[in-house]
Amino acid sequence: MSEKGAIIELIALLKLEKDRELNETLDEMAVQDIAEAISQIDDESDRLKLFTMLPQERRTDTFSYLSQNQQRIILSLLDNGEARRVLHELVPDDRTAFLESLDPEELEGFLKLLGPEDLKQSLKLLGYPEESIGRLMTPRFVSVRPNWTVARALDHIRHEAHRGETVNFVFVTDERGRLLDAIKLKDLILARQDAKVEALMKEAFYSVQASADREEAVQVIQHYDINSLAVTDKNGVMLGIVTVDDIMDVAEQEITEDFHKLGATGSLNISIREASPTFLYRKRIGWLMILVLVNLVSGLAIAMFEDAIEAVIALVFFLPLIIASAGNAGSQSATLMVRALAIGDVEVKDWLQLWIKEFSVALGLGITMGLAVSLVGFWRGGPELGIQLAMVVGFAMLAVVIMGAMIGMLLPFILQRLNMDPATASTPLITSVADVVGILIYFSIASLILTLPSPVT
Amino acid sequence: MSEKGAIIELIALLKLEKDRELNETLDEMAVQDIAEAISQIDDESDRLKLFTMLPQERRTDTFSYLSQNQQRIILSLLDNGEARRVLHELVPDDRTAFLESLDPEELEGFLKLLGPEDLKQSLKLLGYPEESIGRLMTPRFVSVRPNWTVARALDHIRHEAHRGETVNFVFVTDERGRLLDAIKLKDLILARQDAKVEALMKEAFYSVQASADREEAVQVIQHYDINSLAVTDKNGVMLGIVTVDDIMDVAEQEITEDFHKLGATGSLNISIREASPTFLYRKRIGWLMILVLVNLVSGLAIAMFEDAIEAVIALVFFLPLIIASAGNAGSQSATLMVRALAIGDVEVKDWLQLWIKEFSVALGLGITMGLAVSLVGFWRGGPELGIQLAMVVGFAMLAVVIMGAMIGMLLPFILQRLNMDPATASTPLITSVADVVGILIYFSIASLILTLPSPVT
Repeated sequence: MSEKGAIIELIALLKLEKDRELNETLDEMAVQDIAEAISQIDDESDRLKLFTMLPQERRTDTFSYLSQNQQRIILSLLDNGEARRVLHELVPDDRTAFLESLDPEELEGFLKLLGPEDLKQSLKLLGYPEESIGRLMTPRFVSVRPNWTVARALDHIRHEAHRGETVNFVFVTDERGRLLDAIKLKDLILARQDAKVEALMKEAFYSVQASADREEAVQVIQHYDINSLAVTDKNGVMLGIVTVDDIMDVAEQEITEDFHKLGATGSLNISIREASPTFLYRKRIGWLMILVLVNLVSGLAIAMFEDAIEAVIALVFFLPLIIASAGNAGSQSATLMVRALAIGDVEVKDWLQLWIKEFSVALGLGITMGLAVSLVGFWRGGPELGIQLAMVVGFAMLAVVIMGAMIGMLLPFILQRLNMDPATASTPLITSVADVVGILIYFSIASLILTLPSPVT
Repeated sequence: MSEKGAIIELIALLKLEKDRELNETLDEMAVQDIAEAISQIDDESDRLKLFTMLPQERRTDTFSYLSQNQQRIILSLLDNGEARRVLHELVPDDRTAFLESLDPEELEGFLKLLGPEDLKQSLKLLGYPEESIGRLMTPRFVSVRPNWTVARALDHIRHEAHRGETVNFVFVTDERGRLLDAIKLKDLILARQDAKVEALMKEAFYSVQASADREEAVQVIQHYDINSLAVTDKNGVMLGIVTVDDIMDVAEQEITEDFHKLGATGSLNISIREASPTFLYRKRIGWLMILVLVNLVSGLAIAMFEDAIEAVIALVFFLPLIIASAGNAGSQSATLMVRALAIGDVEVKDWLQLWIKEFSVALGLGITMGLAVSLVGFWRGGPELGIQLAMVVGFAMLAVVIMGAMIGMLLPFILQRLNMDPATASTPLITSVADVVGILIYFSIASLILTLPSPVT
């Protein structure tokens, strides 16, 4: 059965109170799908019922795949003993992710549920800066010593495996805990059992520091195609690991942030299903009001040319077309650049080369669009104004498309250069800026060709 | 040394022809970084020199991290014998990715370099549909039988490991090659050596079919947090595996496509650094011309109100502001919805619930922006028209923000429902559609309040 089918069946069985079938279905389902089903249930008591119907050993696993908001709800529904057990069993990085999502007063309540060991560990992990690797890592890993034999190392791994989140890599540390190497478990298995671990060491491993930005871990794991990455303190002492699944979650969040920024929305960090209208309002009103100010400048630009407009009212016909085309060409280049900068396809130093390329593309686009629109101008102008209006709108289109593309291309680079996020060059911002410049260009060209009243300044 | 520092040093050593130091640096560098350095070199002979300076056993590995365009260049620079060796050593999924990037005539040339075995395998993989899982998979995997002992299975894995791209999962198949289970290598190592493999089987594994869309593999791997996934034919016979690193590359490509679509650009599929101006022109002109048509409708809408505009020329002052605000609010909601649909945060069936939420958010946004802009209207209208103009722009702003947000929210859902990509609801498209409706709303409200000449129809 498909994933979605299973979820729908589960919810149906719950509503129909078919507890025996429900139990059987739960046994066969993956914890990720059970978590998905729980988050689709609206009723609190149904949600709790489903969760507590799970055998104890699957509850924490299921819990770890719920959204942080859902986790908070489930934990507050559980009795204290069960909540304590779930929090204790949660792997440390998932526990940190949950705790950091809480308000300060809620945090206090949940910290009280932790035993002294878990509390100490959680406070330590929460001590790392927000969005740092320390907050992502799990301190559970298996390490061996260079002077051990392969057989002893494998034996140690067998005993300790329940502590480690992953054993694809075996970490070699010295007696002071400093990371010496990361060996593939595969190599350890393939090696002669009486060889020394140090004979397998290549000292070509990757590690990141716990205080570094989590973006760095994303890049290292993606760039070097590895499944888990060692995290150390600044002296090289190994503190934990981050794994590729955590990294994929982070990467998804960062990409979502980029999308939202491009659409001129503040970063949400929570599911849109769970976001309240007031929260969404707050995240959106800021940019909209800034853009209102930019658009008022467009009004001022138009006001300069009011006499020209009164003289040839047909000019207003083309106004939305001209300014929208500037914005559209600009949105295209901004989007291309923001994404290329985000995935490291281009860097700030490439700007001149890309500027030249973008200019030639925009020239081609502008000529095509200018020709097309000048035909409309010719028709609209009629026998009297036809040729003049065709020239005005044709040249204006060429000029605004090139200008829009240049703004759209350069703004992300300038932002990156200023160490700001290039995605701040949102398409609404580019469109609004292009409006202002587009209006000035359009009416200036019109004034030149149509010998209109000069602008009011 | 940082990744970037190492690349810069390498290129400097190459330019200075310090071959001995170059050799030492190459020895210490990761193949991913060497590939990055090669792609940053402009000169063909320098590029070839760097590649051939690599010890033979690192060449293919480095090659596999080059872009497909770079691979084509390097292969055409190498002599036939060396090109044949690199193509032979390449893992099958990387070879497929390279071959499918070629033009038909180029493809023929490169296929001639393959030995009979490789050729057969490559043609088979290329036989799967474009963007299918078959094109991504590698047919190299290690499988064991249920009736083997753990010791025998491990022994088999040790012998066959060089054939497998990954051994985190061990696949259990029957005598006809049908997939029975996927066992974690970890579990195999932790088990008693004389236990039977079947005792470890849980029959809770994930697999996908080779002919399915690669998006499916991305979803399964991300949803279930696994590192490698079995690929079968429709009878369940195991054909190969796809691994998380291939999936991350695919996911990155798909996300880039979404970004580009949102910016109204056709999907590029190649690096923007390598894309020619004519290629970029072709990918962008289509949408721009479609949008020109939409914007011409805006012109027609304005033409309907030309008399009203001549009567109160101050109305033009607010025109860019009103229509841009509709587009901005619409871009925000479209971006939020497109991304939420892409990551599965919302589904088509949620549309009504989200519509209600979006309406209340837009109401709040519209009231705030309407109040702000009515103050400007009051000032702009002067003692004579002040109050009336304040009402016109205030109500128009409220109406267009709500309307823009509704279009931006619903269009992605409608596209999804029609099985089209929701990202086709690009911000330039939303902006242009919102322009048309915004103009109609604005001048209609103005005609009502200001008792202007009625529209020309």
